[in-house]
Amino acid sequence: MGGDFAPYHIIQGAIDAQVQLPGDVRLALFGDKEQITAYCEQVHFDPAPFDLVHTTEVIDMNDHPAKAFQQKADSSITVGFEALSAGKIDGFASAGSTGAMLVGAMYTVKPIEGIIRPCIATEFPLLTGSRALLLDAGLNADCRPDVLYQYGILGAIYAHDMNGLDNPRVALLNIGAEEEKGNLVTKEAYKLMHGTTDFNFVGNIEANHLFSGDVADVIITDGFVGNVVLKQAEAIYALSKKLKVDNDYFNRFNYELYGGTPVLGVNAPVIIGHGMSSPLAVTNMIRQTEQAIRKNLIPNIKQALRHQNYS
Amino acid sequence: MGGDFAPYHIIQGAIDAQVQLPGDVRLALFGDKEQITAYCEQVHFDPAPFDLVHTTEVIDMNDHPAKAFQQKADSSITVGFEALSAGKIDGFASAGSTGAMLVGAMYTVKPIEGIIRPCIATEFPLLTGSRALLLDAGLNADCRPDVLYQYGILGAIYAHDMNGLDNPRVALLNIGAEEEKGNLVTKEAYKLMHGTTDFNFVGNIEANHLFSGDVADVIITDGFVGNVVLKQAEAIYALSKKLKVDNDYFNRFNYELYGGTPVLGVNAPVIIGHGMSSPLAVTNMIRQTEQAIRKNLIPNIKQALRHQNYS
Repeated sequence: MGGDFAPYHIIQGAIDAQVQLPGDVRLALFGDKEQITAYCEQVHFDPAPFDLVHTTEVIDMNDHPAKAFQQKADSSITVGFEALSAGKIDGFASAGSTGAMLVGAMYTVKPIEGIIRPCIATEFPLLTGSRALLLDAGLNADCRPDVLYQYGILGAIYAHDMNGLDNPRVALLNIGAEEEKGNLVTKEAYKLMHGTTDFNFVGNIEANHLFSGDVADVIITDGFVGNVVLKQAEAIYALSKKLKVDNDYFNRFNYELYGGTPVLGVNAPVIIGHGMSSPLAVTNMIRQTEQAIRKNLIPNIKQALRHQNYS
Repeated sequence: MGGDFAPYHIIQGAIDAQVQLPGDVRLALFGDKEQITAYCEQVHFDPAPFDLVHTTEVIDMNDHPAKAFQQKADSSITVGFEALSAGKIDGFASAGSTGAMLVGAMYTVKPIEGIIRPCIATEFPLLTGSRALLLDAGLNADCRPDVLYQYGILGAIYAHDMNGLDNPRVALLNIGAEEEKGNLVTKEAYKLMHGTTDFNFVGNIEANHLFSGDVADVIITDGFVGNVVLKQAEAIYALSKKLKVDNDYFNRFNYELYGGTPVLGVNAPVIIGHGMSSPLAVTNMIRQTEQAIRKNLIPNIKQALRHQNYS
């Protein structure tokens, strides 16, 4: 029920995903049963493949996320997280209130043991045709060096499992290539990452090398800088549309292609979609959630944390 | 003598500037007199309008900036800063070693009384056709809230004097528009800036609004984030060239159009050029220096600091 065009874009995206996904996948839709069946009827789709879980409330953008998560106990987000915690579903995605999704991830699903701070990750296109992963994209504005170190573990596993990279190159976003460059936090983080066997650390990356793909597949930064980088990239994409720059590479910045924003470091796959998600974006978000489950993303992260050399 | 194409691009840029500048301006060139006169002869330009100050040493990119500034006492940068401190020249620009230029600015010209940390500023194009000023662009990776506050004063005066804006809109770069958003430093900086009469504070700006011109003319951030934003913008410009996106707006990101990077908060106009400065970039850097002198940028900053409401 979440998102600017809910529930119709959500249902249409689920229908399209259902058609594309392997037969062993079953989608559960949390929302107003009547609206869901009415929409399916309208587009001549038999909703039998879906598990429909009826909910009566909606957390909207004006609600206080933490309060609404508790008080609107029959909202699609709250009921979805209950199902996820209880193991009735294996992953959960929504284009609804980002705040409420984060509350659910942190307080219902909870951080994986050993994780100091979960984070959110975002992807952007590389000139090589591949994708880069950037984390944190905005959850923790202030990060300690050991938190950045753990992002290296989370990012490397995500890029391996989800983007099929054998030994993803992990770099620290910094303001110089040399070891001694940076602010107080990145200087310390560099020292922690340098020589690690927990991930393939390739050193610092400067922002003018973000897009080439020459340096890194995974970019580590705090949630403040990560959010600035992400929004500046969004601005460039919006500009290229506005100025009618029709270029294949710039077009690949379209968020719809990437699904949603994964919350990394919690005990189950949780993906948050853009509020204005189109059916295509919803379909890709569902496929992304399914991949995280199939590739054992969460068990792999748990195992890596048990074996990390720094703690 | 500084820059990848010194001294020829520098001399040509000075020749072009000399032709464009008003008659009351006299340019002093610090460098190898023989090379300067030989180049002028080659392009059939009579060097009589220049004051030629012969220097025998060059600080190169491999030198340690602080050591070289002292040890290469007859370098064009060191001799130039001596002339600036002694009042023999009114402003100084160079495309040479950025580090040595900063050493000269900080230890020879020195910070203006009351300035906690001088900074460097950069400009980028707005969709409106105007320009925005971003500071700090990379001098101070870690900034206290009161340092960011002073950047507001410096930026507002620069945008007024140099870009002709009557009452420039000053915004704090942040990860949300609301007052309570941000990291520890920006939250405190917001409180200091909110309601100030020292400059026209318009609140937070998110990175997706940087280029429209709808929000701000002056963007305040620490040197880490500022450097990331600047280098990401450079990457986008480089991409647009590489991908042959020929768009008027993207073309305006060409650094040559902006001259150099001013050091703000020191006792004289000091401008640092890109190492690979073309003659056009050098000409614009000289014009920018001349404007800073003519518009009384430094006296105006000193006056504003004497009257600042926060200290």
